[in-house]
Amino acid sequence: MKRLTLPTLLLSSLSSFAQKAPSENFVQYAHPLVGTAKMGHTYPGATVPFGMVQLSPDTDTIPYELNGKYNPKVYEYCAGYQYADKTIVGFSHTHFSGTGHSDLGDFQVMPTTGPLQLNPGTADQPEKGFRSRFSHQNEVAEPAYYRVKLDDHNIVAELTASNRVGMHQYTFPQSDQAHIILDLAAGIYNYPDKNVWTFVRVENDSLITGYRQTNGWARTRVEYFAMAFSKPFASYGSRNYSKKQVYRGFWGRFDQAHNFPELAGEQLRLYFDFKTTANERIKVKMALSGVSMDGALRNLRAEIPGWDFEAVKRQGQAQWQEQLGKVVIESPKKVDKENFYTAMYHAALSPTTYMDVDGQYRGLDQNIHQAKGFTNYTTFSLWDTYRALHPLFNLLEPKRNADMVQSMLAHYDQSTLHMLPIWSHYANENWCMIGYHSVPVIVDAVLKGVVPADQAQRALDACVATAHQKRFDGIGYYEQLGYVPEDKSGSSVSKTLEYAFDDWCIAQLAKKLGKSDIEAEFSKRAQNWQNVYDQRIGFMRPRLADGSFRQRFDVLSTHDQGFIEGNAWNYSLYVPQDPATLIAKMGGEKKFVPHLDSLFTMDLPDKFFAETEDITRDGIIGNYVHGNEPAHHAAYLYNWTNQPYKTQARVRMILPKMYRPTPDGLGGNDDCGQMSAWYIFSSLGFYPVAPGSPDYALGSPAVHGATINLENGKTFRIKVKNQSDKNVYVKEARLNGQKLTRPFLAYADVVKGGELVFTMAGKP
Amino acid sequence: MKRLTLPTLLLSSLSSFAQKAPSENFVQYAHPLVGTAKMGHTYPGATVPFGMVQLSPDTDTIPYELNGKYNPKVYEYCAGYQYADKTIVGFSHTHFSGTGHSDLGDFQVMPTTGPLQLNPGTADQPEKGFRSRFSHQNEVAEPAYYRVKLDDHNIVAELTASNRVGMHQYTFPQSDQAHIILDLAAGIYNYPDKNVWTFVRVENDSLITGYRQTNGWARTRVEYFAMAFSKPFASYGSRNYSKKQVYRGFWGRFDQAHNFPELAGEQLRLYFDFKTTANERIKVKMALSGVSMDGALRNLRAEIPGWDFEAVKRQGQAQWQEQLGKVVIESPKKVDKENFYTAMYHAALSPTTYMDVDGQYRGLDQNIHQAKGFTNYTTFSLWDTYRALHPLFNLLEPKRNADMVQSMLAHYDQSTLHMLPIWSHYANENWCMIGYHSVPVIVDAVLKGVVPADQAQRALDACVATAHQKRFDGIGYYEQLGYVPEDKSGSSVSKTLEYAFDDWCIAQLAKKLGKSDIEAEFSKRAQNWQNVYDQRIGFMRPRLADGSFRQRFDVLSTHDQGFIEGNAWNYSLYVPQDPATLIAKMGGEKKFVPHLDSLFTMDLPDKFFAETEDITRDGIIGNYVHGNEPAHHAAYLYNWTNQPYKTQARVRMILPKMYRPTPDGLGGNDDCGQMSAWYIFSSLGFYPVAPGSPDYALGSPAVHGATINLENGKTFRIKVKNQSDKNVYVKEARLNGQKLTRPFLAYADVVKGGELVFTMAGKP
Repeated sequence: MKRLTLPTLLLSSLSSFAQKAPSENFVQYAHPLVGTAKMGHTYPGATVPFGMVQLSPDTDTIPYELNGKYNPKVYEYCAGYQYADKTIVGFSHTHFSGTGHSDLGDFQVMPTTGPLQLNPGTADQPEKGFRSRFSHQNEVAEPAYYRVKLDDHNIVAELTASNRVGMHQYTFPQSDQAHIILDLAAGIYNYPDKNVWTFVRVENDSLITGYRQTNGWARTRVEYFAMAFSKPFASYGSRNYSKKQVYRGFWGRFDQAHNFPELAGEQLRLYFDFKTTANERIKVKMALSGVSMDGALRNLRAEIPGWDFEAVKRQGQAQWQEQLGKVVIESPKKVDKENFYTAMYHAALSPTTYMDVDGQYRGLDQNIHQAKGFTNYTTFSLWDTYRALHPLFNLLEPKRNADMVQSMLAHYDQSTLHMLPIWSHYANENWCMIGYHSVPVIVDAVLKGVVPADQAQRALDACVATAHQKRFDGIGYYEQLGYVPEDKSGSSVSKTLEYAFDDWCIAQLAKKLGKSDIEAEFSKRAQNWQNVYDQRIGFMRPRLADGSFRQRFDVLSTHDQGFIEGNAWNYSLYVPQDPATLIAKMGGEKKFVPHLDSLFTMDLPDKFFAETEDITRDGIIGNYVHGNEPAHHAAYLYNWTNQPYKTQARVRMILPKMYRPTPDGLGGNDDCGQMSAWYIFSSLGFYPVAPGSPDYALGSPAVHGATINLENGKTFRIKVKNQSDKNVYVKEARLNGQKLTRPFLAYADVVKGGELVFTMAGKP
Repeated sequence: MKRLTLPTLLLSSLSSFAQKAPSENFVQYAHPLVGTAKMGHTYPGATVPFGMVQLSPDTDTIPYELNGKYNPKVYEYCAGYQYADKTIVGFSHTHFSGTGHSDLGDFQVMPTTGPLQLNPGTADQPEKGFRSRFSHQNEVAEPAYYRVKLDDHNIVAELTASNRVGMHQYTFPQSDQAHIILDLAAGIYNYPDKNVWTFVRVENDSLITGYRQTNGWARTRVEYFAMAFSKPFASYGSRNYSKKQVYRGFWGRFDQAHNFPELAGEQLRLYFDFKTTANERIKVKMALSGVSMDGALRNLRAEIPGWDFEAVKRQGQAQWQEQLGKVVIESPKKVDKENFYTAMYHAALSPTTYMDVDGQYRGLDQNIHQAKGFTNYTTFSLWDTYRALHPLFNLLEPKRNADMVQSMLAHYDQSTLHMLPIWSHYANENWCMIGYHSVPVIVDAVLKGVVPADQAQRALDACVATAHQKRFDGIGYYEQLGYVPEDKSGSSVSKTLEYAFDDWCIAQLAKKLGKSDIEAEFSKRAQNWQNVYDQRIGFMRPRLADGSFRQRFDVLSTHDQGFIEGNAWNYSLYVPQDPATLIAKMGGEKKFVPHLDSLFTMDLPDKFFAETEDITRDGIIGNYVHGNEPAHHAAYLYNWTNQPYKTQARVRMILPKMYRPTPDGLGGNDDCGQMSAWYIFSSLGFYPVAPGSPDYALGSPAVHGATINLENGKTFRIKVKNQSDKNVYVKEARLNGQKLTRPFLAYADVVKGGELVFTMAGKP
């Protein structure tokens, strides 16, 4: 991402004036601290839209294991930060947003004063290490800017970032013992032998380069850095905290602990010493690369050649202003704008850029590739994001989404298993969750014309190969039996339902390309959900290899019932490709509507709250689990009945309940933007129940109006008449003057520009 | 190195006919098995001149430590092979030749039949593992070709190589249980935690790629490979022998042990299964790269695109024929030709190519670089090779030596310590031995016009910066005191003497470039040998920081006397830049000649044999240690006295004693070709006592005649009249008809072509 100079910024502002009225400041409404308490798992630090760097404070060092056993506390620190914590250990440069599992946290930097302490200390005894107490009173988190006072060291730390470079500005007190610590051993989800290797070169007295190599959730990951200081350090040192033997060889001749310019070992921690005057500022720039140290240096020089912290912050915030301004909403309530723009913010954090300024990137095959004609991205949390985040990108980020599809296809090309990504990050496939949900992302993008037609065949080939990979997660059985048998592969019902949906997507793409044999094969597979539907009880149910349904079954429990991160109540609704047939099978609207009603209204016994992953109690309404993804479409299913007004009521109820602009305001993991994308669509009044379908299902807008500024230069206006918190029902909806007779809106109608007018009412 | 097709080979043969008479077959005289017993530390396997691959059998797996202590047996296996052993564990692809320390041994391959055993077994119980007994009767080792019968498996294994690719041909018996094992955990000098990481991708049923990453003598080394099979394997499997925890993550869903195409872990061992008919041949090609798996694949396709084993062998041997034929000797004794061409062979093994076919290489900084206008080399065993090997290259391999100098300058450019290589291999500096002996290599090459003049200033800068690096090995003290003090830095006398010589070289280069201040500084430093000369005893002696000579001193012991790999008797002669002044200081010829005589004739007490490193008892004549390098010039010192005939006698005595064409025929480690280079020069009748000097010192030719075919197209003829084993004395020497009045020969006179005629006699 090229750096915007001030004149460019002004120019682009001027050109945008030609299109629309001067924008208000949207950045003020986006709060990175939302979701940093409890289960949101977001990070409050500095990043630019889809940026490679996420420079953010880490509030504790949580070992993955304690006494040889999994340490459950580690789960809370997926993003490295928990709002309730009282200390900051340091600022590291890579973080996931809203995941339920983790990695990264590379290159933790911490400024300190006083005698050097080269261990992080503990939360209850921070003074024994380099961490520092802090107070939220002295903390500011904005898009592309974070600020905090480190009380124990009397240092003010400010962070900002460009795409590939994190920039720190530390305001020190007067000190003869000022230090900046670089901990290469630290990281998130620090499994016992996680660090494979670390390496550092001190190029001169203000520039260091190196890398960290890990084996963790990404099995083979290496991240390179180049770190520049605005002032030469007076001296420096290091220590290797590796427990394993590192062959010293003749390196033993050197005193490597002090001022030695080349270091290698499993767990290096370095410190740089300074003398500072009162209020002296020392700045640090940390550039990353997935390719090489050379690459990190090139990124550094291209993106932030100078030392003007304020300019970098301004540019970052200008990028956010532009990003957030893609949808301009109207509302008298500030909280609505805060929710909306915080969601727009969270929905633009990942997938992340994974390519150097020169186009090089590390591929799944661990070789270095040159991206030709696309920007390479990573962090595809596809089980979550295929549902609404990538469909949102087709609306707001089509060019970028097309590049993400290219990135997925490149991954496929490099895969020994001939598979598209499942859950992939940083040149690794980590296989998390289920399904092969690259497929709906790619199909949705191709069918919506976001991916050029000349890539469609290539895309189809990759989807089909992936869906034919028998080794993976019960697909072999699925192909043989028409469902995944629980006794051969767990979470079998979820897998069957999700494979069936992905297969329906493949059939749509095959149809578009006139490949009738593939279309026939996958249309048949798309029906497989029926094979796990137990007519007798009206729920999806685990089935065994011998054909029988499993006896033992509890429709409320999320534990070992054939579902993943969900229960039968929520998951059995998962037939987004064909709600009509599901409803018919369930006895028609007469039976289905009350069933769906009770999902939202039933009283769930307490024990089921405890065992449900990735959400807070607040993430559940009745038995409807909004905090997790499988039922994200559920509220919209009334649109396939004669009571669509219930969708409108449910959606308007969910929105304020599940989204509040407070640290604990998210009802579950943000899941790399999926939860936020749900909010955005639903606030605007429509939702992509079935990615790959040309239509959105209508809901009930929460905004008082909105303008979507499309990449093609057109705008789509949403007007809402008679809006209020009580008027949740849609009396009528008119598209370009024409009344909509069915509660659906075509993607094509949105992207060609136009106007949708909702008239609201207090009763259905 | 491009593959020579048959027509090209014929053509090149024809063009060489235009220059000289048809050559005899030199390859028949070169015996790779020489030096594989005892201390020679050579390897018998297949390689091409200066090739990247050294595909050779390993005869045991020796752990670096036993019960937490250094295992002395590991020393014998520097090259992986000991002639006395009865079993072969496997064939690995990288080996040092003749070193005293070690590394490498990457990618060990072993064919087996019968039930799979995935452990190597032990020497005393080979049947319990995959290793096999063998007999030297069924073993053949030629340049670029090795063959052996693996008795336990009834397999004939043949090996050959191109520059970057090793090729195996295995002739199997009929078997339903034929396997080829790939051990990525195995290696030479396998320190306990040596393997940092291993990674494998099975690209298809006959191609795999991957890498091995180690921390050992090279602190941070990674080697990539691409391995192709001539026949698809029926199935395959793997096991990870890592003791440390490797995070499994969701990979646990897959059965990675069988037929799984992507593997990573610290210690992978793989096996590939086949069914074979009687005498069926399966071939394997293993390409290496220091850059990437992609790079290895490119090397594979460029160098050996097909499967014709015989053709690759022929091409390799044709390269050797050309290499060995650079010096054509005449002798009635086959043993002379065997010694000579075995030495020519050993002197053309390293430094090794360290660059892919596309010019990319991994630099000291761990970044990937593009070599522009030179081939990049590695394995610079400089403490050994600066003495005679690189001077020999200036004669026989000037273009290649110029590239080696470029490689050293690139290393310097990439060094954080601003140093030229000390002992470097595979993108690492390992700091072995003492001195900064890139300097004489570079200076000798520049002053002899081998390195272009436009590089001279750059070369001087690098030499000066290296010599000024105070952190390194006592240089700080050396600069301050004029010698290295033993109480601050061990082996101080050796360091002082060798720095003084290197400094003299710098002065010569500075002089050539007209840099009088540098010349003055380093001419002064070149005198520093005088500061450790103890006039009272007539030996070099360790001196302390307070200026005094150390009291405790034993002129025979090599242990803790201020010398490295030598004693005072041998090392005190080390003033090659100025023997005249040394002789004067020692009391003139009257004192010096008897002193030097007694070096060769004294009886050394037994205890000193035991403690002397890197040589056999056979490597010592009197107290003269030929098996190690510090005294390699000693025999030639008589040339600075009025008794040069003694040089002639000594040299003619040393030659047959220290060099025999048998497995135990080398008197010490071959040291990457230095021992062999000594033989070559001395057989021809001259020796480079002081690299950097324009002259060679004359000795006594052992050949009956020789023709040096220079790269510039000219030839230098050596004619020897009256030659015999008894006629060791040079009655006269005529250069182009002119009688030489002093026992020195100028390099310039050799390379411009001409003729040197020795007339021999039985008496001085």
